[in-house]
Amino acid sequence: MQLGMVGLGRMGGNIVRRLMKDGHHAVVYDRDPQAVDALTREGATGAQGLEDLVRKLDAPRAVWVMLPAGHITETTIEALGKLLAPGDVIIDGGNTFWQDDIRRAKTLEENSISYVDVGTSGGIWGYERGYCMMIGGDKPVFDRLDPIFATLAPGIGDIPRTPGRDDRDPRVEQGYIHAGPVGAGHFVKMVHNGIEYGLMQAYAEGFDILKNANIDALPSEHRFDLDIADIAEVWRRGSVIPSWLLDLTASALARNGELDTYSGFVEDSGEGRWTINAAIEEAVPAEVLTSALYARFRSRKQHTFAEKILSAMRAGFGGHKEPQQHPDAAHQAAPEILKPKAERA
Amino acid sequence: MQLGMVGLGRMGGNIVRRLMKDGHHAVVYDRDPQAVDALTREGATGAQGLEDLVRKLDAPRAVWVMLPAGHITETTIEALGKLLAPGDVIIDGGNTFWQDDIRRAKTLEENSISYVDVGTSGGIWGYERGYCMMIGGDKPVFDRLDPIFATLAPGIGDIPRTPGRDDRDPRVEQGYIHAGPVGAGHFVKMVHNGIEYGLMQAYAEGFDILKNANIDALPSEHRFDLDIADIAEVWRRGSVIPSWLLDLTASALARNGELDTYSGFVEDSGEGRWTINAAIEEAVPAEVLTSALYARFRSRKQHTFAEKILSAMRAGFGGHKEPQQHPDAAHQAAPEILKPKAERA
Amino acid sequence: MQLGMVGLGRMGGNIVRRLMKDGHHAVVYDRDPQAVDALTREGATGAQGLEDLVRKLDAPRAVWVMLPAGHITETTIEALGKLLAPGDVIIDGGNTFWQDDIRRAKTLEENSISYVDVGTSGGIWGYERGYCMMIGGDKPVFDRLDPIFATLAPGIGDIPRTPGRDDRDPRVEQGYIHAGPVGAGHFVKMVHNGIEYGLMQAYAEGFDILKNANIDALPSEHRFDLDIADIAEVWRRGSVIPSWLLDLTASALARNGELDTYSGFVEDSGEGRWTINAAIEEAVPAEVLTSALYARFRSRKQHTFAEKILSAMRAGFGGHKEPQQHPDAAHQAAPEILKPKAERA
Amino acid sequence: MQLGMVGLGRMGGNIVRRLMKDGHHAVVYDRDPQAVDALTREGATGAQGLEDLVRKLDAPRAVWVMLPAGHITETTIEALGKLLAPGDVIIDGGNTFWQDDIRRAKTLEENSISYVDVGTSGGIWGYERGYCMMIGGDKPVFDRLDPIFATLAPGIGDIPRTPGRDDRDPRVEQGYIHAGPVGAGHFVKMVHNGIEYGLMQAYAEGFDILKNANIDALPSEHRFDLDIADIAEVWRRGSVIPSWLLDLTASALARNGELDTYSGFVEDSGEGRWTINAAIEEAVPAEVLTSALYARFRSRKQHTFAEKILSAMRAGFGGHKEPQQHPDAAHQAAPEILKPKAERA
Repeated sequence: MQLGMVGLGRMGGNIVRRLMKDGHHAVVYDRDPQAVDALTREGATGAQGLEDLVRKLDAPRAVWVMLPAGHITETTIEALGKLLAPGDVIIDGGNTFWQDDIRRAKTLEENSISYVDVGTSGGIWGYERGYCMMIGGDKPVFDRLDPIFATLAPGIGDIPRTPGRDDRDPRVEQGYIHAGPVGAGHFVKMVHNGIEYGLMQAYAEGFDILKNANIDALPSEHRFDLDIADIAEVWRRGSVIPSWLLDLTASALARNGELDTYSGFVEDSGEGRWTINAAIEEAVPAEVLTSALYARFRSRKQHTFAEKILSAMRAGFGGHKEPQQHPDAAHQAAPEILKPKAERA
Repeated sequence: MQLGMVGLGRMGGNIVRRLMKDGHHAVVYDRDPQAVDALTREGATGAQGLEDLVRKLDAPRAVWVMLPAGHITETTIEALGKLLAPGDVIIDGGNTFWQDDIRRAKTLEENSISYVDVGTSGGIWGYERGYCMMIGGDKPVFDRLDPIFATLAPGIGDIPRTPGRDDRDPRVEQGYIHAGPVGAGHFVKMVHNGIEYGLMQAYAEGFDILKNANIDALPSEHRFDLDIADIAEVWRRGSVIPSWLLDLTASALARNGELDTYSGFVEDSGEGRWTINAAIEEAVPAEVLTSALYARFRSRKQHTFAEKILSAMRAGFGGHKEPQQHPDAAHQAAPEILKPKAERA
Repeated sequence: MQLGMVGLGRMGGNIVRRLMKDGHHAVVYDRDPQAVDALTREGATGAQGLEDLVRKLDAPRAVWVMLPAGHITETTIEALGKLLAPGDVIIDGGNTFWQDDIRRAKTLEENSISYVDVGTSGGIWGYERGYCMMIGGDKPVFDRLDPIFATLAPGIGDIPRTPGRDDRDPRVEQGYIHAGPVGAGHFVKMVHNGIEYGLMQAYAEGFDILKNANIDALPSEHRFDLDIADIAEVWRRGSVIPSWLLDLTASALARNGELDTYSGFVEDSGEGRWTINAAIEEAVPAEVLTSALYARFRSRKQHTFAEKILSAMRAGFGGHKEPQQHPDAAHQAAPEILKPKAERA
Repeated sequence: MQLGMVGLGRMGGNIVRRLMKDGHHAVVYDRDPQAVDALTREGATGAQGLEDLVRKLDAPRAVWVMLPAGHITETTIEALGKLLAPGDVIIDGGNTFWQDDIRRAKTLEENSISYVDVGTSGGIWGYERGYCMMIGGDKPVFDRLDPIFATLAPGIGDIPRTPGRDDRDPRVEQGYIHAGPVGAGHFVKMVHNGIEYGLMQAYAEGFDILKNANIDALPSEHRFDLDIADIAEVWRRGSVIPSWLLDLTASALARNGELDTYSGFVEDSGEGRWTINAAIEEAVPAEVLTSALYARFRSRKQHTFAEKILSAMRAGFGGHKEPQQHPDAAHQAAPEILKPKAERA
């Protein structure tokens, strides 16, 4: 079927490519004319602006917006809302906050324009692997767009089928789901990312413990000099913890076991934060997901003010003085009292 | 090659079966004679005791002990140490604390008996999938036992190979690793389990947030009635968070989306605890792995004394009284002040 | 000076009493006429409704609203906004969300009515001890209300003065502060409560560790049967951790060392949640304050869905079965493998 | 009464001074002769070594060892054990691990020498304020040493008495407690320090949230420029969270509100770690105490290996690149999507 696509970045461009490969047609727009040209050469119809894009689509239109979440997505959808006609549908495939979806859908509904939110996972690998899509919106609109989703989804592939799903919607096994009304798609995608943070942090801490198993501060008979890259690899095979994230980690470590090309400054997008806000609103204890988020916050600071407060208190009650300089990590583990007797000077 | 096996439970029995299927021969013992008989009928040589087992093995002997970690493993290895001869090797394939390995190996070394610790992952699926093995001990002993490990390991199978590993030990890709000297095998397996706890808790919290997205306490326009089983399934396909643990979860949810056959009382074995002890000794912050362990501790209590202390303090400074009975979970999320205006009475 | 008070509950009533004791005059209203009568007998002027209250106050009026945060406070302030005249001031002394303050102040400003938010701490002890007040609003309005705040504040009393404060606002030492513009009062009070949760949980966990130092699962030579009440008391004197919260704990434990009159179901008000939301918005890692909140969430559940997910996974990969019934807490600590050798069966 | 003191550092020296001020006599030794001379001039009897010290004491002797926990304490007590006679007592007033106490006491008992462990709190303020002492050992030995403890304890002073303690040991109110058998003193002191870490971190995080309430990344109408020093001060008076730790914080902030003389590198001693180990052994969830410890670990690292793992994974699945340099803290809070519409470019 025909789809309009606004935003031809890494995600939007590949979505269009995957659609065209399967026989769909796309009318595409990006504020960067080169991005439009590139896809035009690959078979898409280029548009010079939103108005042009809308004009080139047949009613009832479907326009997928694939832009960075926030201001640019908001204003683009506002503009499209004014250009589109009753019966058309806007699809937000970005990382929008689900409450924004609900608000927007209400406004668009006044002009009988539908709104569908698609939490799209798959990152830079989606063109090949397909995209896992969590979709919110009215069921009939979801059904109308089904050919698009069916093409973008990864399909069953060689992933084993889960027993006991015979009476369930078979599309879920293809990698896309009608999660519920507007907002449900991005809500589920949000929690997906919250879990992603938690999984990543679990692996990260484990590898950190392996990496530090050889520091000087440990008693010599309790030290291990472990090959982290090999351990990541062996866990991919027959252990309890294989995952795609572990595959990626094994791959990175095979290239560089020290990971010293990375500074360790870790960004977070909105979903991790919103997941915690949702947990708090629901009174669900989410220790692990929250700690994973906080580890990223902390990674971006030289020192927190909190730590200075601690130092000030320690100076206050104990006369403790801080070390003058940042000590070598290898020497910081065990105070003298923690060492076994044989290790002490 | 020939292997002695002590302990024919779920793990030990299937290890023997997988070995025999590949042409190895096993001399087996278990204190339950029926377990011995069963494997004898499948081709193993049965032994009536440790002494008999040692007698039936050709020197240099290799005896794998596959018993619950703790007292029974300890005493069995002590007894074997007295029966075996210089050049023999004892393999502890259970969940032993790595410092116990080091201690035992020192004692056995006095009689020139070798000791190898094998962290064995794969659980009840190992017979089919193979076992991921993390192995500690002297390299020559490891090499001597290689035929055993090669058979038990899952092999490459259809798991894609990690690029950049051409110069590395190819056995790692088969699913077994010589992690280092005695203790290193169980140390790596310990961290594997620590990570496992963290991964499990990350998924668990995420599903909990999804499950509670429909509680009464939330504003009605922000509630979603989500199909958890379908969401678990869709995440298996093309998302960032597929894993074997997610496969198992999707499978359990497909059978029973409420999981109401489970009480939610979650046990922990030693490895999760030892992982945290190791993190602390190394001064590695391990928030996620620790929280995952604590969630299990908490799951096994009606109430903690800590919570009573909180209640007592609240009564002290605010005159707060506790609810007389345990409130319905669905109604506990939002205090009045947190609700949007339209929702308030 | 003269003050109108709406809401004569535990807090509002005692605020009026403390004001009258110091020579101020109060016009009071509560929807419960008996509450009005009681304070009228103590010297206040009773009002029969908001209109009556406004009529009985001299312009420029100051009306303190001391109601449960949420709907009732919101509608009361709306109603007052319509009854009051330019130059009047509304004081919200409740536990309002600071962003609501900012919104309300903007609306009231259109009619030249001022708004002051007072985070009021002191609980049921405030009449005697005085109230610690964190105040947001325009400085001139704060100054106009100073006589009220000065009376309500605890004053220096016998709390030692902090050196180095000679050039600072002396009112802070009296126990009240102009924290900033509208919203700042409740923002600071919110963080106060967030800290309160963290402090409480720190003590609670510590006492829990002391309480469980004698469980059967520990090796007998490592068990201590500690007198928790005496320990709480001794820490009040010369240790690093005395505090008012510890005083309250020592008092509760002296009455009942088991605290078995408490169920351990712990509620939370909005401030703890908002504190975490603020931390997340600021990207400040707040592990301790968040864990303290989550401990309360968890205390109100029999089991989380998260825990059932864990059980389901464990059954999936390991065939682990749950215990049929809730085990006795005293026996749950150490798996067999964790026990010292001498303790094992 | 007479006491031998080994170790005349900040703690040991002031303990001797407080004892002498109250009429006790001390025989003192330190490996630094100047420390011995100083106290000799103040009235103590100086000793030139352990042997000399033992010789100068009347039997039955009591020798207090006040040295850094670990090797030096261990060897000193070993040496004393050989010099002392049946009926003598060794007091370890340092921060010894309680299991070491139990081990030592067993050895000394063979020669009928008693051992008492004293968890001593009070830091550099103890000479003036007195020391809170948590004491483990045989009751008769504790009773024999009572005059020493009674002098060192702070006494009731002006701290209000807790009601309901009439039938309890009055010494607790003086600030010292017989906590139980050998080890119980240091066990209770250990938990005291664990709580201390938690309390400190709770305040620290709260102040961090206040401090960051004015960062650029927040929407301008939600920013507050707060005076942290004044807020610390006002909370000392009538709020729920006054404590000695808050007094110290207020004092430090009054001197320097930015605390920019502190680097924020925070050390930990053994007690915080042992507290977590004890919690784990008891299966007590101790989220807050553990997070407080981990915050210190993290404060001493530029970056963790865990963070590099996260970066590597993010590059793997999303092509995310890290910022080239450490961004200014003030700009790191909110991704574009989190900002309110009006704030966006």
